[in-house]
Amino acid sequence: MSTKQDDELAQERLIDLAAEFYDQFAAGEVPRMEIPTRTKSNIVFDEDSKVWVYGDRTSTRSANSVRGARKLLKASYAIEFLVNQLEEGRSSTLRELYYLSESWDNEEAQFSSQDESNQLIEDLEIVAEVTREDFHMRPEESGATLMGPLELREQTRRGEREIHCQKDVGEGGYQIPNNPDTIDFLDHDIDFVLCVETGGMRDRLVENGFDEEYNCLVVHLKGQPARATRRITKRLHDELDLPVVVFTDGDPWSYRIYGSVAYGSIKSAHLSEYLATPQARFVGIQPEDIVEYDLPTDPLADSDVNALESELEDPRFETDYWTEQIELQLDIEKKAEQQSLAARGLDFVTETYLPERLDAMGVL
Amino acid sequence: MSTKQDDELAQERLIDLAAEFYDQFAAGEVPRMEIPTRTKSNIVFDEDSKVWVYGDRTSTRSANSVRGARKLLKASYAIEFLVNQLEEGRSSTLRELYYLSESWDNEEAQFSSQDESNQLIEDLEIVAEVTREDFHMRPEESGATLMGPLELREQTRRGEREIHCQKDVGEGGYQIPNNPDTIDFLDHDIDFVLCVETGGMRDRLVENGFDEEYNCLVVHLKGQPARATRRITKRLHDELDLPVVVFTDGDPWSYRIYGSVAYGSIKSAHLSEYLATPQARFVGIQPEDIVEYDLPTDPLADSDVNALESELEDPRFETDYWTEQIELQLDIEKKAEQQSLAARGLDFVTETYLPERLDAMGVL
Repeated sequence: MSTKQDDELAQERLIDLAAEFYDQFAAGEVPRMEIPTRTKSNIVFDEDSKVWVYGDRTSTRSANSVRGARKLLKASYAIEFLVNQLEEGRSSTLRELYYLSESWDNEEAQFSSQDESNQLIEDLEIVAEVTREDFHMRPEESGATLMGPLELREQTRRGEREIHCQKDVGEGGYQIPNNPDTIDFLDHDIDFVLCVETGGMRDRLVENGFDEEYNCLVVHLKGQPARATRRITKRLHDELDLPVVVFTDGDPWSYRIYGSVAYGSIKSAHLSEYLATPQARFVGIQPEDIVEYDLPTDPLADSDVNALESELEDPRFETDYWTEQIELQLDIEKKAEQQSLAARGLDFVTETYLPERLDAMGVL
Repeated sequence: MSTKQDDELAQERLIDLAAEFYDQFAAGEVPRMEIPTRTKSNIVFDEDSKVWVYGDRTSTRSANSVRGARKLLKASYAIEFLVNQLEEGRSSTLRELYYLSESWDNEEAQFSSQDESNQLIEDLEIVAEVTREDFHMRPEESGATLMGPLELREQTRRGEREIHCQKDVGEGGYQIPNNPDTIDFLDHDIDFVLCVETGGMRDRLVENGFDEEYNCLVVHLKGQPARATRRITKRLHDELDLPVVVFTDGDPWSYRIYGSVAYGSIKSAHLSEYLATPQARFVGIQPEDIVEYDLPTDPLADSDVNALESELEDPRFETDYWTEQIELQLDIEKKAEQQSLAARGLDFVTETYLPERLDAMGVL
């Protein structure tokens, strides 16, 4: 559930789109929809918001072919479904939408694959300039958990819930809802937000009381973070003015996890301003840490080397810091997991490594 | 955190093991450890507990070779670590144990791979006849969530938490802790437990208020369920005497998810009595439902066909019900996802499908 204003805005934008098709018909024009081209060559860095967004190049979906006309027909049916869904205060998943189209009266409007319906929803997000969550489309993957000195109020279908993310939850923490915009932050004692890749490390930090000792909110990323996890991280930064640091394994796949928190992805550059936290900083495991703390390592696989080389050419990693770290890693030919810090004992991460790193970064 | 008695029992059993090595040395014997052979041919159905357990065949780890001696050395170091961990009321993950061994003073005792340390812990579970959780070894993957009319008390390191799994949680539900034996069930209004494979379906049931209308506890399995999820499901059945039904996609991989809730796995047959709920029943999607409700389907891939054929030969699926369903599926050559029920509308699953199926099964 989002706010009533959000729902009304999303409805309005969708109806505007349908009205545009109508006006094009009325003016004797072939109906069409313009959307930004979604390729690597059409993303540009927006200096104001510090995120990567689409550039000026657009593609046109036009009814001047049977294929194009069918696309717009499907868009019209999807718009009708979404408007009704918002009207009724309901929600659904992308997969449900795909299956639901089988119940539509016009067979030509039914989706032939889930890729097709997924892409249409992305198109509608971009053109309507609202998010999937504003359409009440729930993500398939649920968000992860929070643990730390934060009191929040969640609007649920069953009324409001006020929850303190240390005092009112079990050791598993507070489960982030699919749409974290149903949350209001009431009160907090957080000094910084620490996003953690693995469950094992998240549990280590909670067991060692790191969130209590350092007034830190531990956000479990659970690997590549879900939209809900990225969204709440951004809101914590923007609304509570909190520093955000990301703690992952020391390998190219984990740097991408950091990248998706900080910069978003090419496929969803239209969501960067909603999901990305460009001020998020990487705490480690850095390739430098592998050397400095003499961590247990695994050798880089060929796929690791390729991924690192591709990151060297990725505009999102084009900083002195990342160039230096990635080149160092290619040089030492090693990677390390965050739990490898346990080679120095179970308290090393909370008593030595994180305090040292966070101090060096000026977070503590 | 488990209870003090559990901790003491686990400690005692571990020390007994070490004492056995000592006695063997003292008696001039070559130290050894006997463990059940863990293969398909050595699992037997236990009529009393209705679960599959290891048979009589055993293998011996003996110090009569350098390799065997090294294994027992590692076991001794691991026992010492675990006893200290229990003494201090701490816990750790399997991965941490592997890395931690690098800090041990005897290099010969260090694990050369995580497979090796994982297997040792499994051996110790079997020989000591307690579970990994009793050693305070946390699983790497966290459990999923609960939503329904259940009030529980969780013992956390930070004190007790009393939580109602509808009134005190957000839409995400109650996050199951890594060791659900820290939970006491206080009060409930549950008529049955419904374990659900996918997040999309879990969210649909919660959005439609199925847990409220049918007094049902929705357990999200999140694909192949974590140990914590299986353990709490078993406890709900055994301690509250509740029927358990499992709701998954209609394909061979999902039948295995049902199987892991109901029967456990060959690799962990020693844990069946702790983790398996043999009374759990399968609600669907059954191959029969694909026909009866005319669901949208995908064709079976070759790997699906192979998996179905292997299930036909699996002792755990050797019932009339499963033979009939699997043969029907091989015949129609189709599979269907649980969310495909949305082809009949978003309420079909909660207003028609589940009430009909649960009624036919005698659960409602």
